[in-house]
Amino acid sequence: MQDVVLGIDIGGTGIKFGLVTRTGEILVTDKVKTKGYPNPEKLPEDLLKWATKACSDHQVTLVGVGIGTPNGNYYKGTIDFAPNLPWKGVVTLKSFFESTFKLPAALTNDAKAAAIGEMYFGGAKGMKDFLFITLGTGLGSGIVVNGQIAYGFDSLAGEVGHTIVYRNGRECPCGRRGCLEQYVSAPGIVKTYYELLRSKNLDEFRTSIGNMIDSAELCKLAEDGDTLALEAFQKTGEILGFALSNSACYTRPEKIFLFGGLAQAGDLIFKPTIKSFESYLLPIYQNKIPIVPSGLKESEAAILGSASLIWNELNK
Amino acid sequence: MQDVVLGIDIGGTGIKFGLVTRTGEILVTDKVKTKGYPNPEKLPEDLLKWATKACSDHQVTLVGVGIGTPNGNYYKGTIDFAPNLPWKGVVTLKSFFESTFKLPAALTNDAKAAAIGEMYFGGAKGMKDFLFITLGTGLGSGIVVNGQIAYGFDSLAGEVGHTIVYRNGRECPCGRRGCLEQYVSAPGIVKTYYELLRSKNLDEFRTSIGNMIDSAELCKLAEDGDTLALEAFQKTGEILGFALSNSACYTRPEKIFLFGGLAQAGDLIFKPTIKSFESYLLPIYQNKIPIVPSGLKESEAAILGSASLIWNELNK
Repeated sequence: MQDVVLGIDIGGTGIKFGLVTRTGEILVTDKVKTKGYPNPEKLPEDLLKWATKACSDHQVTLVGVGIGTPNGNYYKGTIDFAPNLPWKGVVTLKSFFESTFKLPAALTNDAKAAAIGEMYFGGAKGMKDFLFITLGTGLGSGIVVNGQIAYGFDSLAGEVGHTIVYRNGRECPCGRRGCLEQYVSAPGIVKTYYELLRSKNLDEFRTSIGNMIDSAELCKLAEDGDTLALEAFQKTGEILGFALSNSACYTRPEKIFLFGGLAQAGDLIFKPTIKSFESYLLPIYQNKIPIVPSGLKESEAAILGSASLIWNELNK
Repeated sequence: MQDVVLGIDIGGTGIKFGLVTRTGEILVTDKVKTKGYPNPEKLPEDLLKWATKACSDHQVTLVGVGIGTPNGNYYKGTIDFAPNLPWKGVVTLKSFFESTFKLPAALTNDAKAAAIGEMYFGGAKGMKDFLFITLGTGLGSGIVVNGQIAYGFDSLAGEVGHTIVYRNGRECPCGRRGCLEQYVSAPGIVKTYYELLRSKNLDEFRTSIGNMIDSAELCKLAEDGDTLALEAFQKTGEILGFALSNSACYTRPEKIFLFGGLAQAGDLIFKPTIKSFESYLLPIYQNKIPIVPSGLKESEAAILGSASLIWNELNK
């Protein structure tokens, strides 16, 4: 029988999971609501029932469990103080799964899991050094160096979204000012759009359509040629390109992958980002580091990322 | 007989070399002038004669050659377009040494060699993730991730000195503006001092002692309580602390080591750097990442670094 792993992606709203083969084929998926699990120990029990039936249906053998989660700590196998999850404090989720499944499990934060997914099943196959950036409600990152994720001393490396791009810039919930993700993320670009409206005294005029706008609608506006929406993408790309030109100085990635909602705006975000990146880039790197869309499908990335995390452990 | 390696440090003025044991003991050293070698192929020949005699004198066996050099490319074993060396274009120095010595050789840039030296023989023994910064005529860096130097795709990773800290800042010979090393380096702090003099209209007054000042003299001035010299250290530390707070977001080092002339100013540079670092640092890292002086002696670091590079290869 073919070996598979259970890939689990934990989010604030939903928990998605699926059986994934060694080559990245997703055999079956399902999801549950996060708020249905006020007690996290119940989750492995229910998923074991699901996986047992799914493995039997597909005639495959389960060999491990990979978990991608906000605030996941790879070294400890815990979720630490996740503000968007119902579980408070430190949750030893990896050990809950290992003792329920009697199988190896691994846990990391969602952006790092997605970066490993890119390396196993996406556009970074065979790459030893690359940078993976996910642009969603925040800016997450996974940095791969010498073929391994950079976890750092305490598993909390890879916080590119919290590098400071403006010393006295926008306030960030982290307590500081000017963090990259305050500008380059779905809420960040919307904030930039409203700043532009205000600076042109168009605020009142646009309020009727404006108050409800999100980054997807902003994208539509820009595609329809709205000058200010286009300017918001321009500015966002300019800041991202600048930040990535500094990122390149650390680990000299072969490529930089952009993933997530904002990356799906295509040329609207890629063109100004690449232009700015090249203009700020150290000459020895110029025209040598492509910034490209992730090779993972948006709908599959989370489960593939979590699955690749445990495949990576099993391959060690 | 005990095994030793030949560690070689190539600089613009001099080439230093020595025999180093596996535990980091330097048995004997010597040096030659760089300009004495307009033809780089002559260097391995002369060093072989020297090493053969030195090994015989000390009753040891030579097992490898490590080379630290400006513009050293680890993957290719070459020195590429080094502006401060008499050798133009690309010099295949590693292969010259291997064919002359009939032994394994390895070559990398000097800052990366020193970082490996820190890991083998200095303050980073046993560490898997740390950042090594050398403050001299420029700002060099070696980034260790998962126990390995980050070379990146083309061996040119670790250019922390060329991260941009002021978008329209001082001109850098790299062709851009605002690079960290234009502020945080021996010439950088001197420039800051002169800017302060000018801003206070003290330029003319100080020119008599000022035109010849270097960073060591600036250090003496500051130790004697000179307000502007102290302010120059303050500003330099402030910028370095800010830059390192962003560095921490990439690889979350266990410690950050400062090496080189400017680091020898002690509290004058460490105090403002640490204060600024902590004030800009992401809260999850605060008070957890010590910035400390290198554990290598200034006089031994270059040879120990080059030696550790080849010991590291031989240990693989």
